Amino acid sequence: MLRRPVGGLWRLGLSHARCSELRVEFRGASGLPSGTEDHVVGAGEPDRFGGVSVRLARLGALDRLDAAAFRRALQAAIQQWQSEGRIAVWLHVPILQSRFIAPAASLGFCFHHAESDSSTLTLWLGEGPSRLPGYATHQVGVAGAVFDENTRKILVVQDRNKLKNMWKFPGGLSEPGEDIGDTAVREVFEETGIKSEFRSLLSIRQQHANPGAFGKSDMYIICRLKPYSFTIDFCHLECLRCEWMDLNDLVKTKNTTPITTRVARLLLYGYREGFDKIDLTMEKLPAVYTGLFYKLYHKELPENYRTVTGMD
Amino acid sequence: MLRRPVGGLWRLGLSHARCSELRVEFRGASGLPSGTEDHVVGAGEPDRFGGVSVRLARLGALDRLDAAAFRRALQAAIQQWQSEGRIAVWLHVPILQSRFIAPAASLGFCFHHAESDSSTLTLWLGEGPSRLPGYATHQVGVAGAVFDENTRKILVVQDRNKLKNMWKFPGGLSEPGEDIGDTAVREVFEETGIKSEFRSLLSIRQQHANPGAFGKSDMYIICRLKPYSFTIDFCHLECLRCEWMDLNDLVKTKNTTPITTRVARLLLYGYREGFDKIDLTMEKLPAVYTGLFYKLYHKELPENYRTVTGMD
Repeated sequence: MLRRPVGGLWRLGLSHARCSELRVEFRGASGLPSGTEDHVVGAGEPDRFGGVSVRLARLGALDRLDAAAFRRALQAAIQQWQSEGRIAVWLHVPILQSRFIAPAASLGFCFHHAESDSSTLTLWLGEGPSRLPGYATHQVGVAGAVFDENTRKILVVQDRNKLKNMWKFPGGLSEPGEDIGDTAVREVFEETGIKSEFRSLLSIRQQHANPGAFGKSDMYIICRLKPYSFTIDFCHLECLRCEWMDLNDLVKTKNTTPITTRVARLLLYGYREGFDKIDLTMEKLPAVYTGLFYKLYHKELPENYRTVTGMD
Repeated sequence: MLRRPVGGLWRLGLSHARCSELRVEFRGASGLPSGTEDHVVGAGEPDRFGGVSVRLARLGALDRLDAAAFRRALQAAIQQWQSEGRIAVWLHVPILQSRFIAPAASLGFCFHHAESDSSTLTLWLGEGPSRLPGYATHQVGVAGAVFDENTRKILVVQDRNKLKNMWKFPGGLSEPGEDIGDTAVREVFEETGIKSEFRSLLSIRQQHANPGAFGKSDMYIICRLKPYSFTIDFCHLECLRCEWMDLNDLVKTKNTTPITTRVARLLLYGYREGFDKIDLTMEKLPAVYTGLFYKLYHKELPENYRTVTGMD
C-alpha cells in the first residue's frame, strides 16, 4: 500500500512549524574564526518535523566567510544533523549572499523556491525520496462572463495577440492575494471599461505544464458578473474587438473556444430556468486555526438545508 | 482609468514568446577576454514583448569569468539594451553558477522564481512598476467526501496533529501536474485505505497569505467520491480516528469545521433531491492553441442544452 505518512505529517503541520520554530541560541559566530563548523551547526533551528533551518541573514561574520570555508562548515554541520537523526535541512539565503548557493548545491542542496530578495534551498537527509512539501504549483486566471439579463447580451472580446481571432470573455491573471471575484471585476474593467459586480462562480478549468505559466499548472475560473455600466471603452492594445453580443449568437458562433461555447450554453440554461441552476455562490467564513478568513464557493443551499440538522 | 495594457499583453502572449524566442547568434564568448561587455550583450535573446533573456548556461567561458567582471559586463549590457528600448531583462542562472546572482542583484535584479537546479531573475527597465507576469501563486489541496449512497455513510477522519480533534474529510496537497480528482482519490487511499472514484467537484475555498503555503495562497477543493472498497485501514501517523459516519451525524456534530458542515448539508441536499443539484461534473477538452488537453468543471447541462444553438 503506497503511503507517505511522514510527508503528510510534514505538510499537515507545517503552518505550526513555521509559527513555533524553536529558536536555538546562536553561538555567536562573529567571535569565531571563519570556517569554524560551529558557525553553521549552531545556527540550525530544529523544527518539530525532524528538519532543521539555517537562516544566513541571522549568521554574523558572513562577510569574512568565503564560499569554500562555508562549504566545509556546512558539510560538517550536515554530518552533525544527520547523526542527530534530522531528516531535512532548509537553507534561507538573502540574494546578496547568493555566493553560498553553489557550495550548498555541490553538497546536494536544490532550490525549493525564490522570490524577490531571497531564496530557499533544501536538502533531504531522510530515507527514500524527499517528502518535503512543495511550493506553489498553480497560477490562477479569472474571466468574467458579464451578462445583462435585461437585454440578454453578453460582453465578449477578441484578443489582439492571438493567432485566431476568437470571441471570448475578458479576463487575466490574479494578482498575489487577490480574490477570484475581484480579479474578474478588475480584468473586465481594464480590458473593456465596463463596471460590474461578482454574482457567482460558473466553471473551473485545470491545465498542466502550461508554457505561459513557466511550466507550472493553470487554474482558470469563469465568473458570472452583473454589469452596472454599459458603454464599452476597450483597451486597443489588448483587444481587437469588444462588443455586447446576444447570448444566442455566442451560443451559435463557431468563431469561439470550446470553453466559451460551454459557458454560453450554461448561461442560456441559467437565463431560462434560473441562475440558481448554474451558480456557485460565495460566502466568507472564518478559518479554524489561523484566525484568517476564506471564501467558499458551492451550489447555494435551499433555505431549508441551511440550518438542517439531519433528516430523520 | 487604471489599466495595464502592456502587462496584459505580456501575459497574454507569454506562451508564444517562450516558444518562438528569437535565437540571436551568440558571439562566441570563449574567444573573448573575460570581462568583455559583448560577452553578455551578445548572449541576449530578444522576445516580442520588448524583453531580453540571458541564459548563463549557454554562455561559454563562464568558469574564467569572475563575479566582478560579470557585473561590469552585465551593467554595460543593460545600458545597451536600455538604449535599444528593451523594457525587461530575464536572467536564467544554473544553480552552480549562483555566484553571478549577487552581482546581478546589486544592479537591481530580483528573483522571479527558482526551482530544483536553476533560478530566474528579472530586471524591469520600462516605465512605472514592473508589468512582468508573476510566478505560480497558489498551492492546491484536495479533499475527498467519500459518500456511500447505499448506507448513507460518509468517510471522515480526525487529524493526529491538529490542536482540536475535529472530524473532516481526508485530503492533502496536489502533486505537480496531478489532476484534482486524482489527488482526492490518492489522498483518501493514503490516509484511510479506502478505494474510490471521482464523481464531481462540490466546493472551492480560496485563502491567502497561508503560513502552510510559504505565505502564498491556497485553493482547497472538495470532491464527491464514490467508494468501491469499505474496510478502513487508516494511517495512524496522520490520523487519530477514521470512520464511516452516518451523514446525519456529520451534519449535526459540533466537533467539525464550518466547511465540513457546509459540505455535509450539501451532500444531504444532493442525497435527498439528486446529486445533479450539487455536482460540478468534469469533461476533458482540447486547448485551442497548445494542443494540450484540460479538464473543465461546471454544473452539468441538461441533455437539451448540450447541443443547443439558441433559444429563438
